[in-house]
Amino acid sequence: MQQPLLMHINNTVFLRDDRLIVVDRRLFPRQVVECICSDYEDVAQAIEQMAVQGAGDIAITAGYGLYMAARDLERQGHSLNQVRSRLLEVKTRLIHTRPTGFHLAALLDKLWNRIDWEQGDWGLQIMEGIQQAVDTQQKRSELTGRWAQQVLDDGDTILTHCFPGPALLYMLYFAGENGKNISVISTETRPYLQGARLTAWSVSQLDVPVTLITDNMAAYCMSRNMVSKVVAAADRVALDGTVANKVGTFQLAIAARYHQIPFYILGYGGPDRACPKGDQIPIEMRDPEEVTSMAGIKTTGDLVKGFYPAFDLTPPKLIKGVITDRGIFEPEKVGDYWERTK
Amino acid sequence: MQQPLLMHINNTVFLRDDRLIVVDRRLFPRQVVECICSDYEDVAQAIEQMAVQGAGDIAITAGYGLYMAARDLERQGHSLNQVRSRLLEVKTRLIHTRPTGFHLAALLDKLWNRIDWEQGDWGLQIMEGIQQAVDTQQKRSELTGRWAQQVLDDGDTILTHCFPGPALLYMLYFAGENGKNISVISTETRPYLQGARLTAWSVSQLDVPVTLITDNMAAYCMSRNMVSKVVAAADRVALDGTVANKVGTFQLAIAARYHQIPFYILGYGGPDRACPKGDQIPIEMRDPEEVTSMAGIKTTGDLVKGFYPAFDLTPPKLIKGVITDRGIFEPEKVGDYWERTK
Repeated sequence: MQQPLLMHINNTVFLRDDRLIVVDRRLFPRQVVECICSDYEDVAQAIEQMAVQGAGDIAITAGYGLYMAARDLERQGHSLNQVRSRLLEVKTRLIHTRPTGFHLAALLDKLWNRIDWEQGDWGLQIMEGIQQAVDTQQKRSELTGRWAQQVLDDGDTILTHCFPGPALLYMLYFAGENGKNISVISTETRPYLQGARLTAWSVSQLDVPVTLITDNMAAYCMSRNMVSKVVAAADRVALDGTVANKVGTFQLAIAARYHQIPFYILGYGGPDRACPKGDQIPIEMRDPEEVTSMAGIKTTGDLVKGFYPAFDLTPPKLIKGVITDRGIFEPEKVGDYWERTK
Repeated sequence: MQQPLLMHINNTVFLRDDRLIVVDRRLFPRQVVECICSDYEDVAQAIEQMAVQGAGDIAITAGYGLYMAARDLERQGHSLNQVRSRLLEVKTRLIHTRPTGFHLAALLDKLWNRIDWEQGDWGLQIMEGIQQAVDTQQKRSELTGRWAQQVLDDGDTILTHCFPGPALLYMLYFAGENGKNISVISTETRPYLQGARLTAWSVSQLDVPVTLITDNMAAYCMSRNMVSKVVAAADRVALDGTVANKVGTFQLAIAARYHQIPFYILGYGGPDRACPKGDQIPIEMRDPEEVTSMAGIKTTGDLVKGFYPAFDLTPPKLIKGVITDRGIFEPEKVGDYWERTK
């Protein structure tokens, strides 16, 4: 299997010479530019500016930020109490970079809770936690991809949105292994074009035929029988089955329902246990300038305001199944994830 | 009334020193660049490349192309038969520039049929026809805008798509005259961004509050009660009430129906009498490169194909009313337009 670069986070987020390198996904695939993060604040800004994306990958990247802060505080010879208090501020800073996805806060809490403060070597302890998380995430992606390929039929064309992460690529890989010919249509996903830059490019690296459309062409394609299934990801799944994902997902789900096309969510590690209802998920509002410009060039008049909700909520009634590493769930029953063993 | 530039075609498509100037709408409003057309072929290419847009404005521009060809043939001293035969080729060339809108072929046929071949001065005859068409179109826009303002309520926020032409601006102007406070949300309308470049900018020139969103944010805005009505235009209305308009219109209509938001079409001069059913409307397929690049920069991998249907079809069941210069019609009864007097 020829591994697309974005199939594993280690290819684009990694330590080199004491600094965290984040390969800037906003410029892929035409330019490979490294964001060099010297401290946790650089990491926080790389996350905010979306040099890295995807709920799981954001979480890991933030974990590295916590690690760098711990390491720097150790080197500066602060006391345990000083380190703990300062690290808590860093954790809060990192959690506030992107509010919608739940993996970010969940992973930082997990890394925090596993620290044995008396033991020292806090940076090393955090790094061990990150490495476990990377491994867990990769296994989840692979397992989710295995479950997802089961819903595909030979000859299917899958419409997808934004970059649903490695599970989409595993899904296509395993479908190919099972002799299923699958094609993909990718929305470009304005304003950051993750669909064009990341998804379409990664899918093409798997030798799967892939066609790029603008976000407003999806219903047309559905109406012409060009789409057999829609598969998107989730930045957070509430226990009631509501899915927060990149803005535009909800619109695709409505169009899919209108055309009676099954709509699936790649749910990776399951729903957020702390979030009973979808309306509790905060929707991140980003800088409106990102909408009133394209490729850095202002596109409209000076009196025009922009509006940029980065995510939207898809209600469970529009979703056929949430596909996780533990199997496929009806959205209303996605809470059963936590009772099911792997 | 401060007239936005795009409220009248004469501001952007006009003769100067024997040449047709088409102010390039793809660069508005940040740059004002003139396309200088020295002959009908230049005009055909300006239309194909979308320097001018909107079914009515395209038709008028093509009319100028026919005029320039007639004038040049006269100057070259060709015989009546030579001129007629050559002009017929020119007319065919111009009609084939954009297949979906019906005004283009309709106006060229009209200009053609009104020529008194024995009389000579064919160019002059065509020019008289164009001037009549410009006047008629402007009156239609104003009347359509007057009817359209009737469906608006004080406090409404209107979501629109692409550039629906002067009728939208008249609608907002007359609503203001009637004391209605209206706001507008404009989709940017990829790939050419007519919503950002033309609609949002023109609306802001009317001092109407306007917010720009990317095409994938419409359903989110609807779900948050930010949209009271959707108003789009039509490149062609079939007699069965099916509407061909800029790709993305159909997707908005589906999302509007899901949210029980009324969806209106600005139908200007009514349906195409020669088109009983929507599926007879040809959908123009444009160069896929226009989707796989943004602002001239390729956005995706070399193995990724693009797909660019320039229009889509919205079925009558999703449309609340087709608003014309002769009144508002239920889409299924839009054929009654032809029985109604002004």
